[in-house]
Amino acid sequence: MSTIDRCEIIDLPRIQDPRGNLTFVESGKHIPFDLQRVYYLYDVPGGAERGGHAHKELQQLIIAISGSFDVILDDGCATKRFHLNRSYYGLYVCPMVWRELDNFSSGSVCMVLASIFYDESDYYRDYDEFLAAVRSKA
Amino acid sequence: MSTIDRCEIIDLPRIQDPRGNLTFVESGKHIPFDLQRVYYLYDVPGGAERGGHAHKELQQLIIAISGSFDVILDDGCATKRFHLNRSYYGLYVCPMVWRELDNFSSGSVCMVLASIFYDESDYYRDYDEFLAAVRSKA
Repeated sequence: MSTIDRCEIIDLPRIQDPRGNLTFVESGKHIPFDLQRVYYLYDVPGGAERGGHAHKELQQLIIAISGSFDVILDDGCATKRFHLNRSYYGLYVCPMVWRELDNFSSGSVCMVLASIFYDESDYYRDYDEFLAAVRSKA
Repeated sequence: MSTIDRCEIIDLPRIQDPRGNLTFVESGKHIPFDLQRVYYLYDVPGGAERGGHAHKELQQLIIAISGSFDVILDDGCATKRFHLNRSYYGLYVCPMVWRELDNFSSGSVCMVLASIFYDESDYYRDYDEFLAAVRSKA
């Protein structure tokens, strides 16, 4: 399986209720990693773009917890675009995948569940450096 | 210190950016517990109410990640009402505190970071049973 084919939408549990719906994610159960870090983007202007990096080890689940946006994934061989617009869909992103986010709807919130603490040395921030690393592993 | 005084607003880190602001929470670092579970309420009708339970062991951080709502805490001796309306404020709730949520703004999203997996035996769902437990420990 190519790297990008390991990235997929996880249909998270949801408990429907007229007072509001509830979705939950448990460390190592609904996601294939232990939860160490949660971060979220908010106050995002409509149409904004974000991202442009890859991780060496970090695994993530990206959720459009409010509103919608697109995630473009690139493993150096192929790209895939996902439109996230449901609070109960999580996009699993494995290591060694370049990601960009765009097409944010006004007022959207992007939540990310992550497998490790913030570590700048885990990032590829330069696309050519990322590509060279992918090819050296191929 | 009384139980309810241990419940307080945690001012979470935020990275301000014109493309959208970012807040992060790391397990055991910005919160006084390890992260095991994340859940969130969405599609909440304006003015809805929620909650009405307490936990024996569970610790939580409650965040109005979008919109606003109130959290009413009650340790059996005193009550406190918090109005949450900032994505970077988290309300820490310790064990043995009865909580109710109300005054949801339309389209708000309530995110909760929790210290243990879901366990029905950790709940008090009956207020009188909760009060009896508080008094037996006093």
